[in-house]
Amino acid sequence: MKISIERSALLKAMSRAQSVVERRNTIPILANVLIEAEGSAISFRATDLDIEIVDKSDAMVLQAGATTVGAHTLHDIVRKLPDGAMVELSDDGTSGRLEIRAGRSNFSLATLPKEDFPVMASSEYDCNFAIDATVLNRLFDKSKFAISTEETRYYLNGVYMHAADGADGPALRCVATDGHRLARIDAALPQGADNLPGVIVPRKTVLELGKLLADDTQIAVSVSETKIRFATPEVTLTSKVIDGSFPDYSRVIPQGNTKRLEVDAAEFAKAVDRVSTVSSERSRAVKLVLDEDRLVLSVNAPDSGAAEEELAVAYADEPLEIGFNAKYLQEIADQVDRENAVFLFNSAGDPTLMREGNDESAVYVVMPMRV
Amino acid sequence: MKISIERSALLKAMSRAQSVVERRNTIPILANVLIEAEGSAISFRATDLDIEIVDKSDAMVLQAGATTVGAHTLHDIVRKLPDGAMVELSDDGTSGRLEIRAGRSNFSLATLPKEDFPVMASSEYDCNFAIDATVLNRLFDKSKFAISTEETRYYLNGVYMHAADGADGPALRCVATDGHRLARIDAALPQGADNLPGVIVPRKTVLELGKLLADDTQIAVSVSETKIRFATPEVTLTSKVIDGSFPDYSRVIPQGNTKRLEVDAAEFAKAVDRVSTVSSERSRAVKLVLDEDRLVLSVNAPDSGAAEEELAVAYADEPLEIGFNAKYLQEIADQVDRENAVFLFNSAGDPTLMREGNDESAVYVVMPMRV
Repeated sequence: MKISIERSALLKAMSRAQSVVERRNTIPILANVLIEAEGSAISFRATDLDIEIVDKSDAMVLQAGATTVGAHTLHDIVRKLPDGAMVELSDDGTSGRLEIRAGRSNFSLATLPKEDFPVMASSEYDCNFAIDATVLNRLFDKSKFAISTEETRYYLNGVYMHAADGADGPALRCVATDGHRLARIDAALPQGADNLPGVIVPRKTVLELGKLLADDTQIAVSVSETKIRFATPEVTLTSKVIDGSFPDYSRVIPQGNTKRLEVDAAEFAKAVDRVSTVSSERSRAVKLVLDEDRLVLSVNAPDSGAAEEELAVAYADEPLEIGFNAKYLQEIADQVDRENAVFLFNSAGDPTLMREGNDESAVYVVMPMRV
Repeated sequence: MKISIERSALLKAMSRAQSVVERRNTIPILANVLIEAEGSAISFRATDLDIEIVDKSDAMVLQAGATTVGAHTLHDIVRKLPDGAMVELSDDGTSGRLEIRAGRSNFSLATLPKEDFPVMASSEYDCNFAIDATVLNRLFDKSKFAISTEETRYYLNGVYMHAADGADGPALRCVATDGHRLARIDAALPQGADNLPGVIVPRKTVLELGKLLADDTQIAVSVSETKIRFATPEVTLTSKVIDGSFPDYSRVIPQGNTKRLEVDAAEFAKAVDRVSTVSSERSRAVKLVLDEDRLVLSVNAPDSGAAEEELAVAYADEPLEIGFNAKYLQEIADQVDRENAVFLFNSAGDPTLMREGNDESAVYVVMPMRV
């Protein structure tokens, strides 16, 4: 194999590859990236056995071939090369080394046989559709904070994507919850997604996908019962989905909450952050006291101190006192893109619903805490 | 005590105070800042028993008094208050609480009696002089990278400041070494510093001092055999010095090195960084092979790979091969402010000297490594 490629193209491909490759690997080949050159294209393939990413770049292929080499080391080298450099990669197939040349720099890295690289088996996909990157990004970006990190409830360690009946008709819906809070985000169901099987997309896939979706482009999504694939013309991300049943979340979303609070989301998040400063506990409880057009946030930590802050809000129902985990409140308020957050309460013991104005395409639920 | 102070002034003072206060303290009062209000000034005092910082700010003192309160908590609160806010601090002296008010926010923090706060004993200073902040900053900034972190050789855990005979006459000199490399930085000896006792300024003091010296101002320095004090009109930093003898460093600085290499310092540092990428060991050895106007840097890590880079340099002496710890070489090259670094070698087994051109006011020594 012998190819010549611009440093910036190589860096982009290697950044994506090394991101999937775990820092510590018990199986040496998993630390490597599979480089394949043919025709006028070169592909970089990396995997952790659950996720596979394939990046195709244009390159001058002087001699076709394939090899595997340490992804993090190659990424570090390319990162440190001067901007604009042309990089030559060559492997004579016998020395067990990949030679890297750029300007006056020469590197040689130990390779492993390309035959040992675990290429993910190709699958039949039941459902194929195209969706705008920005729309797909919103679905995952606004729900991912609620993904559970508790490994015993493995079926909550991802975002549940499925077709559902939304407020504005058929919806592509993403749901995540850790049992304390829940996010339910809808987008219009794309053509071809009617028969979408419900799949749980693992946390790492959601995070890797977020890095791909920065570009404003169309994403081809393919889903089977065991796998999901996201593809742009350059990059294909294939991931196993979590093998489990996502709980029936619809029962958790309160329907009858009538006490309505409207508040500036940024001001609210800042006030929660400030009052929670006085407590050093991990699960800080913040108390909300609601009265006519008036919200008082307070934290009381007997050992260290107390804090209180008043906000002018829109609230016209009967007085209410309710407590929440400060971190959960802040994270939910941070999801609001528009100015105002609308909270709907029932009582101090019932789950609270939050959305942006009357928009039901993004709905959040948070459980109260006794204070 | 009751005072009113602008948020930005309070934030500046508290940033300095919390920086001295350790995150974990076995003695509770050491987590606190002592706030003293009198006349039209307020002072903030923090200590870790080795370093004491006192910050004086203008404030509206409505009632004189003093109290102590958690430095990190108060800093966090002030940091989160909106820019431009006026902050009121009040302590009625009986409730054991400091009340903090700003706009619609109210905080109350637990206090500890001001009598328990360990104020550093005042000392007689043998030597007092004034020096430009930029000059003092250069002395410590260019030497601190060589401070040893090995606690058994505690007398190397700081920068040795003393009066010496420099190349251009009497000098204020800072020296640091960890046994592998050494930095010796000179400045013109300020008036009044002739009888300066040699003192070892501890690492933490050097780092805290660096934060003070950002402003372009005059620093009043006072030195005794046990303490050193740095003062601006607003801030006074007092530190114990390390009780030990700094070794006779002058014998370490080679005098007879004649093989002269001149190289672009930034290019050199980048090349060292690049070639060392192929080795994952902590003490990576990089080999320098010198021949007429040509330098080849190389690293050989049998398991993972090899790297080589050539640089055009000025070198007119006999061929030389010499090895160094890559990190030491990079750190020394990073100290060079001008374009070119000059290395003076003797043999592959002898210490190497580095300076900026012919300027002898900043001299570095680095020990070679067998490669």
